[in-house]
Amino acid sequence: MAEENAEKKDEAIPENVVYIGKKPAMNYVLAVVTQFNNGARNVIIKARGNTISRAVDVEEITRNRFVTDSKVSDIRLSSEELTNEDGTKSKVSAIQITLVK
Amino acid sequence: MAEENAEKKDEAIPENVVYIGKKPAMNYVLAVVTQFNNGARNVIIKARGNTISRAVDVEEITRNRFVTDSKVSDIRLSSEELTNEDGTKSKVSAIQITLVK
Repeated sequence: MAEENAEKKDEAIPENVVYIGKKPAMNYVLAVVTQFNNGARNVIIKARGNTISRAVDVEEITRNRFVTDSKVSDIRLSSEELTNEDGTKSKVSAIQITLVK
Repeated sequence: MAEENAEKKDEAIPENVVYIGKKPAMNYVLAVVTQFNNGARNVIIKARGNTISRAVDVEEITRNRFVTDSKVSDIRLSSEELTNEDGTKSKVSAIQITLVK
């Protein structure tokens, strides 16, 4: 799973998606701001499990302090199924927040 | 702050609002399901800070497993200002998810 994610991050993720992990929120805010500064018209913030709260922090900080002409155009909630290392499956909630400028 | 919350819970909260706290998600799922069973047409799930992730869990579990004819009609993200015990202020992100049946 970790390997799959790493691979995704290096290759398949479109430029304007920011995946939220365990780092401080400001790291991801910087990523979002950079995308807008590089000309992106919209940036998608994705998170699952415990990092969902941080995704909302990233959206709020970006919109209120750094890209004040951006707004939330879409929020999607979903469930994803993960396969654990021992082969069992667990469900985890996910969020996808689209910011547009 | 804790006292203020306790007071709110006992008096001022409308019947169809479920505030997410630190308990297991299933406690809040039960609260939401009960509201629908008591005839509520919509239930608002509110959370802030770290409990935002749990709010999404509660929405997903309720909608996928218990009230399968419900759907999300609205999701709002915001920032709230809290006054700490020492008088300083801090901002915290908040979410409000409306489920309708």
